[in-house]
Amino acid sequence: MPHAPHIEHHFTSSESVRDVVIGMSDGLTVPFALAAGLSGAAVASKVVVTAGLAEIAAGAIAMGLGGFLAARSDAEHYASERRREEEETIKVPETEAQEITDIFNTYGIAPDECAPVVAALRRNSNAWVNFMMRFELGLEQPEPTRARNSALTIGSSYVAGGIIPLLPYMLLPTLSQALECSIGITMLALLVFGYIKGRFTGAPAVRSAIQTVCIGGLAAAAAFLLARAIR
Amino acid sequence: MPHAPHIEHHFTSSESVRDVVIGMSDGLTVPFALAAGLSGAAVASKVVVTAGLAEIAAGAIAMGLGGFLAARSDAEHYASERRREEEETIKVPETEAQEITDIFNTYGIAPDECAPVVAALRRNSNAWVNFMMRFELGLEQPEPTRARNSALTIGSSYVAGGIIPLLPYMLLPTLSQALECSIGITMLALLVFGYIKGRFTGAPAVRSAIQTVCIGGLAAAAAFLLARAIR
Repeated sequence: MPHAPHIEHHFTSSESVRDVVIGMSDGLTVPFALAAGLSGAAVASKVVVTAGLAEIAAGAIAMGLGGFLAARSDAEHYASERRREEEETIKVPETEAQEITDIFNTYGIAPDECAPVVAALRRNSNAWVNFMMRFELGLEQPEPTRARNSALTIGSSYVAGGIIPLLPYMLLPTLSQALECSIGITMLALLVFGYIKGRFTGAPAVRSAIQTVCIGGLAAAAAFLLARAIR
Repeated sequence: MPHAPHIEHHFTSSESVRDVVIGMSDGLTVPFALAAGLSGAAVASKVVVTAGLAEIAAGAIAMGLGGFLAARSDAEHYASERRREEEETIKVPETEAQEITDIFNTYGIAPDECAPVVAALRRNSNAWVNFMMRFELGLEQPEPTRARNSALTIGSSYVAGGIIPLLPYMLLPTLSQALECSIGITMLALLVFGYIKGRFTGAPAVRSAIQTVCIGGLAAAAAFLLARAIR
């Protein structure tokens, strides 16, 4: 499928970054909040570590496979819409040509002005279908390796993020020391992650860092208070 | 921004459905897997319920606010790219006009064939920018209420999904009974959810049901075995 090179680049990099962001923001936040919450219920450190690791395994698999299926479903959606467009350009070419004219019309372009473009597309059925996919449906052809890469990226980012808040519970002797240390290193990790995320996604980096810390803090506070209330 | 009405519809409905799918597939899977994992470590039912509810609170907040920020970042990305295109059509109109010609060329359309379209766009700067946003960058203008709706939909879907696997641990007297019952009702819920998800997203419904159950089962099995190994 023809593309201007910079469009291709734009989409590919943002999808990988998005997968790391999806996996790591939940991986840093949810196991941290769960461990803090269980500390609020005053269970043994061992239970916190067991629950935390079980959560990381479950979360990484659920989010990774969820990302796999989402990417594959995007690819199937693209393929089925493409087949439909291919059939329509063969079976009802006049209708499809009229659709292009109608779309151009929404941009203030008169039928006689776009007629040469419509005629050129009708000479080249592959280009015609490509044009409809992008222009009528706004769909990009997904990379063939996208589903597998997406699953691995999301899953490993979740594990990498989730281990950080659990380390203090594995290494320090008392629950209160572990909780304090976990809050400290996780807030630091969220700050760094939010800052880098902002740099990659084009958002103001400091604002992104603060927002990311706030989400982690809010989730942990809610889990902590809830667990303390019902212990 | 002008749109063919069916494009607008297509994007709006699929975004809400996607939010429910994001929230509910993780909500049904992760608390279920965590509870099963902790059962494998043979802790008290009360600890399973505490950890499960803490996880639901943390997960719903983390995913909901994550969805909020993702939607707002999409809106900001759209707005900043739009400003850039607006500036460029004013400052370097010849370059922008050439970009349109180049893009048409990738679809096998000659410069003289698309010249009337380019000339028409240059007469109407708003339509020109709209055209570049869609055709050069492939970006849709997001709904203004998208970020808030996305957060509420993801968060409440996570809670709704997460309560189901925990109910047996709240209601039944022994951990082994609760685990069996939780597996039964959660597999049933995943089956129904996967089926309905398939109907909404256009995937084969039975295959979607089976895949959804497999993800939940894999995540729970991993959490269970890991927790049992380290208890």
